[in-house]
Amino acid sequence: MMRRAIELARNGMDSGDGGPFGCVIARGGEIIAEGNNRVTSTNDPTAHAEVVAIREACKVLNSFQLDGCTLYTSCEPCPMCLGAIYWARPDKVYFACNRDDAALAGFDDALIYDELAIPNEQRQRAMISLLRDEGVALFQDWIAKPDRVEY
Amino acid sequence: MMRRAIELARNGMDSGDGGPFGCVIARGGEIIAEGNNRVTSTNDPTAHAEVVAIREACKVLNSFQLDGCTLYTSCEPCPMCLGAIYWARPDKVYFACNRDDAALAGFDDALIYDELAIPNEQRQRAMISLLRDEGVALFQDWIAKPDRVEY
Repeated sequence: MMRRAIELARNGMDSGDGGPFGCVIARGGEIIAEGNNRVTSTNDPTAHAEVVAIREACKVLNSFQLDGCTLYTSCEPCPMCLGAIYWARPDKVYFACNRDDAALAGFDDALIYDELAIPNEQRQRAMISLLRDEGVALFQDWIAKPDRVEY
Repeated sequence: MMRRAIELARNGMDSGDGGPFGCVIARGGEIIAEGNNRVTSTNDPTAHAEVVAIREACKVLNSFQLDGCTLYTSCEPCPMCLGAIYWARPDKVYFACNRDDAALAGFDDALIYDELAIPNEQRQRAMISLLRDEGVALFQDWIAKPDRVEY
């Protein structure tokens, strides 16, 4: 499975789809979805291999959860992809090389990990809060909504 | 702009698209893309408001970068969305309520932030490395690739 993820990464790099990253999602020993990085060819900064494969696997399973699935990715997921994994909740995750290997190849993963771990105000890209009360009111309505679908 | 993001969140919640989250991306004082959470209605765990809006804005601009753009989101971005923001690189980000408000409404954002900040081996959802050398070899080929498009 991991060799297939690495092969997808190589094929995607060679064909100009995007960066050298590939991902396979398997269930019951069979591949149900594959992905490779397509950021630059599709103008989609979220089209990392893991996100592409997760979206595809969810389509195949007709579910927003990956129960019983294992994800194999050619590189340790960046924070965006790790977040996507936590939301999709596959059973297991395997990766080949790590964030430091990615940093040496010019990818920002390690920087983003560092930024996420510190308080908002101290980040290079600090965010500002506006209209918090109106946002909180939304959540109160969500909690009170009898037919809400949790995820 | 933030009021519009909150309105998108409310409309999406009311229509059953997904959770109570909305996002607006503006450039030069005009809205160029909007998004709301569509996780449960589209079976896509990555369809958070920010990801939806970023993908749409990149389509509009025909670019994988959001230079000159400002992003307004009804809630502090979760790690997945914050990662997507770091990759898309808008100039500024505003949010209404925060991760603690989201946790009170039953969303996992704070948990995922906590997990990302600790070493892999200590996480609830630890990941295992396989075939690292083969992954590293990929990156060496990427660095040697003369026509690579960086992102």
